[in-house]
Amino acid sequence: MSDPNDLAAFLADAWKHMEHGVADGTSPARFPTFGTVAPNGTPEIRTVALRFADPDRAVVEVHTDIATPKITALKHNPVAALHIWLPEAQLQIRLTGRVEVRTGPQVEAEWAKVPVASRVSYGTMPIPGTPIAQVYGYEKPADRDRFAVLTCNLTEIDLVHLDTRHRRAVYTRDDDWAGTWVAP
Amino acid sequence: MSDPNDLAAFLADAWKHMEHGVADGTSPARFPTFGTVAPNGTPEIRTVALRFADPDRAVVEVHTDIATPKITALKHNPVAALHIWLPEAQLQIRLTGRVEVRTGPQVEAEWAKVPVASRVSYGTMPIPGTPIAQVYGYEKPADRDRFAVLTCNLTEIDLVHLDTRHRRAVYTRDDDWAGTWVAP
Repeated sequence: MSDPNDLAAFLADAWKHMEHGVADGTSPARFPTFGTVAPNGTPEIRTVALRFADPDRAVVEVHTDIATPKITALKHNPVAALHIWLPEAQLQIRLTGRVEVRTGPQVEAEWAKVPVASRVSYGTMPIPGTPIAQVYGYEKPADRDRFAVLTCNLTEIDLVHLDTRHRRAVYTRDDDWAGTWVAP
Repeated sequence: MSDPNDLAAFLADAWKHMEHGVADGTSPARFPTFGTVAPNGTPEIRTVALRFADPDRAVVEVHTDIATPKITALKHNPVAALHIWLPEAQLQIRLTGRVEVRTGPQVEAEWAKVPVASRVSYGTMPIPGTPIAQVYGYEKPADRDRFAVLTCNLTEIDLVHLDTRHRRAVYTRDDDWAGTWVAP
């Protein structure tokens, strides 16, 4: 392992895990939990799939159906939290960012890359969360107009490594990601 | 498997997983993510350990250090979200509840059961999140006065089973946990 006192290496390692999560559907970094705040103030968390991670711009992206409550939440409060736990690395990655909801012609390139079989994730009828009389009382047509890319412009990254002695660091965009060790 | 249309069996199954998580430190149900809303409106998520689950009262509990930001958040907004993903069962459990922060003499029994080696999770100096000059520039004394039990009185349980066809149900305390199927 690199020098445990190396803040930049610690951050680079976290980004490597996130890039791996984008590339490899079996990586635990592929499935962060995504936290938002509903208009009534209730915190909401759900599993999402990590679709893009760019260390240079400090941006991550996930895809969603615009009919889901996370869009309602983000319209009201565009701040989201992402959480990744990597059991093997014993590393917790926590991200905070401002989310831009991109839809329509802006996301044509992303939609083109969604496998046909996966497109049914965008378009469930009735819309997700609607009560239905029977367990399977819904249809899953693919609806391109319901597809959205959530571009998360990160403002903070908080890493905890459960090593023999815990290591925790917080990095912020305001600090140009230089980071500081913090008490775990 | 039981009848896929059986709402009560679906909920009972989720509780069984949670009880298993309390009993077995290797179960993925042992480590939910715990979501709160900071006073400035930012959603926060972190890993916690599930310490207690009571289907009859619809209560779950986790332990924390009162010096952590989740306590600041809960004092401002006592509503929390918990999220569990069970890869083998392909089941997502989402809980929403109102949290009572219990400390001091009220939690004497719980503190007595915390293994001595684990008591250092309550008392880190400087307090968690404080910038430190060196990666290991902190101490971990055990401080009983920093130990808190977060008693989450659940108001809603949202289950998604990624079966051949997805099954999703929402149960609420107001509905006496009868539940309803919803579009996934």
